[in-house]
Amino acid sequence: MGKNLTSRTEDYSKWYNELVVKADLAENSGVRGCMVIKPYGFAIWEKMQAGLDKMFKDTGHQNAYFPLFIPKSYLSKEASHVEGFAKECAVVTHYRLKNAEDGSGIVVDEDAKLEEELIVRPTSETIIWDTYRKWIQSYRDLPLLLNQWANVVRWEMRTRLFLRTAEFLWQEGHTAHATREEAVKEAELILDVYATFAEQHMAVPVVRGLKTESERFAGAEETYCIEALMQDGKALQAGTSHFLGQNFAKAFDVKFATKEGKQEHVWATSWGVSTRLMGALIMTHSDDNGLVLPPKLAPIQVVIVPIYKGMEQLAAIAEKVNPLVKQLQLKGISVKFDDRDTHKPGFKFNEYELKGVPIRLAIGQRDLENGTVEVARRDTLEKESVSFDAVIEKIETLLVAIQDNIFNKAQTYRDANITNVDSYEEFKKVLNEMGGFIAAHWDGTAATEDKIKEETKATIRCIPLNVEKEEGKCMVTGASSPYRVLFAKAY
Amino acid sequence: MGKNLTSRTEDYSKWYNELVVKADLAENSGVRGCMVIKPYGFAIWEKMQAGLDKMFKDTGHQNAYFPLFIPKSYLSKEASHVEGFAKECAVVTHYRLKNAEDGSGIVVDEDAKLEEELIVRPTSETIIWDTYRKWIQSYRDLPLLLNQWANVVRWEMRTRLFLRTAEFLWQEGHTAHATREEAVKEAELILDVYATFAEQHMAVPVVRGLKTESERFAGAEETYCIEALMQDGKALQAGTSHFLGQNFAKAFDVKFATKEGKQEHVWATSWGVSTRLMGALIMTHSDDNGLVLPPKLAPIQVVIVPIYKGMEQLAAIAEKVNPLVKQLQLKGISVKFDDRDTHKPGFKFNEYELKGVPIRLAIGQRDLENGTVEVARRDTLEKESVSFDAVIEKIETLLVAIQDNIFNKAQTYRDANITNVDSYEEFKKVLNEMGGFIAAHWDGTAATEDKIKEETKATIRCIPLNVEKEEGKCMVTGASSPYRVLFAKAY
Ligand SMILES: [Zn+2]
Ligand SMILES: [Zn+2]
Repeated sequence: MGKNLTSRTEDYSKWYNELVVKADLAENSGVRGCMVIKPYGFAIWEKMQAGLDKMFKDTGHQNAYFPLFIPKSYLSKEASHVEGFAKECAVVTHYRLKNAEDGSGIVVDEDAKLEEELIVRPTSETIIWDTYRKWIQSYRDLPLLLNQWANVVRWEMRTRLFLRTAEFLWQEGHTAHATREEAVKEAELILDVYATFAEQHMAVPVVRGLKTESERFAGAEETYCIEALMQDGKALQAGTSHFLGQNFAKAFDVKFATKEGKQEHVWATSWGVSTRLMGALIMTHSDDNGLVLPPKLAPIQVVIVPIYKGMEQLAAIAEKVNPLVKQLQLKGISVKFDDRDTHKPGFKFNEYELKGVPIRLAIGQRDLENGTVEVARRDTLEKESVSFDAVIEKIETLLVAIQDNIFNKAQTYRDANITNVDSYEEFKKVLNEMGGFIAAHWDGTAATEDKIKEETKATIRCIPLNVEKEEGKCMVTGASSPYRVLFAKAY
Repeated sequence: MGKNLTSRTEDYSKWYNELVVKADLAENSGVRGCMVIKPYGFAIWEKMQAGLDKMFKDTGHQNAYFPLFIPKSYLSKEASHVEGFAKECAVVTHYRLKNAEDGSGIVVDEDAKLEEELIVRPTSETIIWDTYRKWIQSYRDLPLLLNQWANVVRWEMRTRLFLRTAEFLWQEGHTAHATREEAVKEAELILDVYATFAEQHMAVPVVRGLKTESERFAGAEETYCIEALMQDGKALQAGTSHFLGQNFAKAFDVKFATKEGKQEHVWATSWGVSTRLMGALIMTHSDDNGLVLPPKLAPIQVVIVPIYKGMEQLAAIAEKVNPLVKQLQLKGISVKFDDRDTHKPGFKFNEYELKGVPIRLAIGQRDLENGTVEVARRDTLEKESVSFDAVIEKIETLLVAIQDNIFNKAQTYRDANITNVDSYEEFKKVLNEMGGFIAAHWDGTAATEDKIKEETKATIRCIPLNVEKEEGKCMVTGASSPYRVLFAKAY
């Protein structure tokens, strides 16, 4: 397995596309825009799912499952939602195929046309709020804190593995509350869960913020988001949490009896992260040698490669290594002893570097004699010889150190790439020469936001939650502005 | 919450439908034939998933994810497969909606017609074998042992919650092997996993068998199955594992280079269980009071109901109960202390009976004084007073006892409902008066099988793997037969 990866400086986009395929994460399928998530990629996604799922449950949420299909009429019930989602989507119009009369194969049976078309869910607010109407009568039924893990489809024209695919996997939370305050609190709680997961599990530093009105989810009153910065200076929205007000409750007529016996519309949130997180994970940490995975999400945390001539040496190494493997497993560390005799050590070194395995042990005849083992860490590519007796402790320390190191490295990079600018000229210059987040004053109008987007392709990523008040003037119109917002080109 | 369940003897089918809804497992959605799996039902399914997923991984399988959509032409590539699956299915024909010109809402955009229709997967052999062609070149790439957890759609006309729905959740394994023997062994291994899971986790006894040719999966050379018996005497197919021969490898041109350098077609299996297992679980154990859940799959294993007058008594009970809750949780036992003051104990007793919680503790003022607690088991409805100090041990013993007891009860019932018959008259009599499995001689022809099915609605559920040789005569045609096969009416 030669890596032959395009380097990041040569062509970042090409580097990413190659890496996803060569590291066995995903590939394009025979269905336009739909990906196959390969076992190694899926194992990372499973670890993400497990981590998030536990956090959702620890904060009182339960999982459920709602239908894949949404009747076309449901989409129309919430006015801004339909504008946002009833566009590029997969439409089911028939429910039967038949053999063609001319024997040419199978064709759609025109007699089996649906009375109402079904949309493959692009998101599930409408079908879920149609269901919540039946479930919510009284304040006793609230809050309702549900999540589902599901596939969704948005008919994207230009797709890229993980970042933008027609079908993708995600979780979508949909909660119902008795008061505005409680719903807002929920949306903020989830933003905190997302940010914590991104930073502590994925080792991806994120800015927590609010979207501007024009970047909000279709149907939301407020969209909270976490924004990460990729190594090419482009931002990536890694998760969103929406305060939906009473919009869906009104559209689907979901009311509850208050303690005082009044009928009121229910308050809502929805929130989601998707397989897009895989793209963020890959682009934040990886290098020209391949993936770099945070130990907390690595399917294989430690790989052991024997260096030997002949089966006798391999047997001696295996005898030494097998108890180590068991001890590591008992500690919950996932380890692979790669004793394949079909591949040479150099090939294996390359392969595990490409696949981002955090720690690689190599052990040969001389190590056996000296009671040592070579320990290599993927993040820094540093190697050292360690006493065999101390290797478990070393591994435990290193797994923590690697998790910390790649987070700190990403955070240092991110922090160094937030630039304050005060003029539109400077803005364009920084955007093109350096990229990253640009903190600038903006007059708060959609018109200015649009103009900037059209002229520079940069969008307002968010108004950071921890933004400092600072009187200033919009870099474009000169109108007054109470704080800086973060701009960037984005995935 | 009054139970008001129809009794099983009164109307078994109605009892089932009511129970699924009243126990908060699932309900019909606004989309014809598609169900909503409610949080309590989904929590059971999650436990099933976790148990099976571990068993798959322990036997060397990995998860992956393949597209939801299958191009129409793929379905046609394997001749018998297309006959079986390209019939009642959801067909995506367009990829865009637009606002109607007359302002009447949104309509399908006729300009966005797909060149080739996409089928929402009814099963994924075709898209997966189209992918395997790219992944398999050499014997070194084999075996390929993959599974996916996914939703699938089959446009069923008559649907019932869990048992037959247009969309359902399942896992589908798809493996590729270098030899026939290895593929057969895999299909048998998985049958064993399924049977073990059904019996040890679900407490559902199953017959392991082979399907007759006419009941085989479309595209399979052999279909292994597990068959369970419901309390109304009808059988339910709970899982199938297919040896696919080289059919899909030939249809999708998947060859590998052998060690000797020859090109050969790959051997395949596929296998699946679905949310249908929920139906089997419910119908095997539950009674006229509601669900009965095996402790291994119960989302709540122990519920504690305080019996009190006034907040002071509740506080005293809570003080006693809270440490118990913690201790049980430390032992991995899921426990709920239901201290809601909006509902009376009798209501709660009914609710947890309906929901099948295996063990219910009740504790009141007198219990506090006596150092006791009332322990009730859901399977037998027996109650006893237990010393508070001994309650944890009691719970641990009971959880095992309940799991065993409901399995044994189901097995005793099943075994008592396998009847050997030797004439077609007797067959019809037993089928109509008693139901259950009927072991009878059959001449091995599809014609006789069809005749029996048409005349009695009974099908051959399987040829048991442990069938005893016994020379006999077909009950219909009198032709010779080497062993008895199992007939039943089935879900
Ligand atoms: Zn209303
Ligand atoms: Zn071929």
